[in-house]
Amino acid sequence: MGERLVESVPNVSEGRDRAAIEAMAAALQSGPTVRLLDVQSDPDHHRTVFTLVGDPDGVADAILRLFAAALPRIDLRLHRGEHPRMGAVDVVPFVPVRGVTMADCVALARRVGREVWERFRVPVYLYEEAASRPERRDLAEIRRGEFEGFADKILREEWAPDFGERVLHPTAGATAIGAREFLIAFNVNLGTADLKVAKAIARAVRGSSGGLRYVKALGVALADRGIVQVSMNLTNYKKTPLARALDLVRSEAARHGVAVVGTEIVGLVPEEALFSAADHYLRLERFSPDQVLERRISSAPDG
Amino acid sequence: MGERLVESVPNVSEGRDRAAIEAMAAALQSGPTVRLLDVQSDPDHHRTVFTLVGDPDGVADAILRLFAAALPRIDLRLHRGEHPRMGAVDVVPFVPVRGVTMADCVALARRVGREVWERFRVPVYLYEEAASRPERRDLAEIRRGEFEGFADKILREEWAPDFGERVLHPTAGATAIGAREFLIAFNVNLGTADLKVAKAIARAVRGSSGGLRYVKALGVALADRGIVQVSMNLTNYKKTPLARALDLVRSEAARHGVAVVGTEIVGLVPEEALFSAADHYLRLERFSPDQVLERRISSAPDG
Repeated sequence: MGERLVESVPNVSEGRDRAAIEAMAAALQSGPTVRLLDVQSDPDHHRTVFTLVGDPDGVADAILRLFAAALPRIDLRLHRGEHPRMGAVDVVPFVPVRGVTMADCVALARRVGREVWERFRVPVYLYEEAASRPERRDLAEIRRGEFEGFADKILREEWAPDFGERVLHPTAGATAIGAREFLIAFNVNLGTADLKVAKAIARAVRGSSGGLRYVKALGVALADRGIVQVSMNLTNYKKTPLARALDLVRSEAARHGVAVVGTEIVGLVPEEALFSAADHYLRLERFSPDQVLERRISSAPDG
Repeated sequence: MGERLVESVPNVSEGRDRAAIEAMAAALQSGPTVRLLDVQSDPDHHRTVFTLVGDPDGVADAILRLFAAALPRIDLRLHRGEHPRMGAVDVVPFVPVRGVTMADCVALARRVGREVWERFRVPVYLYEEAASRPERRDLAEIRRGEFEGFADKILREEWAPDFGERVLHPTAGATAIGAREFLIAFNVNLGTADLKVAKAIARAVRGSSGGLRYVKALGVALADRGIVQVSMNLTNYKKTPLARALDLVRSEAARHGVAVVGTEIVGLVPEEALFSAADHYLRLERFSPDQVLERRISSAPDG
């Protein structure tokens, strides 16, 4: 693959019909410069999350093919699932991976957003780093009301779409398209069955209640293991690294007399996040990723 | 570069003549499937260390080209330097990096060793994982006596070369060719100026005096910073990982009332060694390198 890489993680409102999901996966990966890394369908949520990477133009084309495949196959008027949603293609984030900036991904979100309206007549809201105003950064804020409430919401002055007219697509609703950092799902398991402890720690570490700026956290029970877990999303691992999140959970847990018994990273993690954790705990004084053998191999000039 | 990668780190007995060093570097990198990653010359040692990677056949050819370039340019009868040496091309290790086993590197050492004798009439000793008998595993043991003592040493029954006759090359001496794991140079800085503390810790952690099996260690003074350092070579980072070496130095230092103030990795490090340190300190329960985004990108099938 090329040196400029963008990830996109489109979420669609179909998690049950295998044929429809496969058709959308096929549409995403039919370009020569993109790769579909993962497909996660949840029948209860009635939702599928695709993970693809490629060069910026290739990923933009793939997302437009996804809309073309999804619109005839998804009718939100008939959709019932646990996960909140406002669109057939509900959310499309672009994530810088290599050789591209956040500004590039914001530009990509705007370009794709404009085309989605022009080609498919689905109104588009820009979110997170691509948001056109502060109150649209938060996806949950945009989606509040969901498909059923959006016919009214879109008529309100402050909820005019960023691209498109103030009319919902009859079957495909509206779409949020944005740019954000890579998201790491990082869970910390605690040596207690007391869910109150996990919830208290989650409250202490998450940004929204005064903790770390780029951490979202929930306390959950792992019933089969008889323990509890602080389940976190790190929304900017460069500014709030894995090590800092773990160390804060550990010290909050100690205050409750509880030990960290293990952790897990769910799904993918950028190598830089692991290099950074090694750097932190090994107490390296001046480490550069250029010292990594595999990077030197792939970046050395031919000859 | 291809999926099968071997590293080689040939050491030659020339660290002063820029033209000679450049001619040898050019010889090494003139093959289409190898890359020269690093060249380190030390005039006091009168020695140059090259680091190259490539597919096994490409690296084998590069090493033979190095001999052809080195032999007319280096005359050990005139060589004086601080570093012990017995040959113009003194040492050639092969190191498995990706898609090759240690057995592959042993076979490569034997194949190149045979050709070095046949083409250049330089007798060859196999060392470390490629050694033909236990007392030849240790390079220092083979090299003892150096070039000046080798005319006699080679005549002793137990020091017959693995390839070649029992006669030293008149100007190029003998060569050690072997196979080993990737070597990580890892130094730990201590918050004291007391060299005795660094030496005591080095003794405690190195394998030869009862410490960790794959650690070599020395206590050295960093005069300009007014502190001391435990300078380590990790000769098998898979079996004695960075985290274990650091943790043992840290607990030995604590016994002296001394803190670890920082560390450094000198030169290259395989990504797996850093992933392993992150895994250890983050206390991950089931981490797989397949979760690393960059690996998934490079290993995913085309499409």
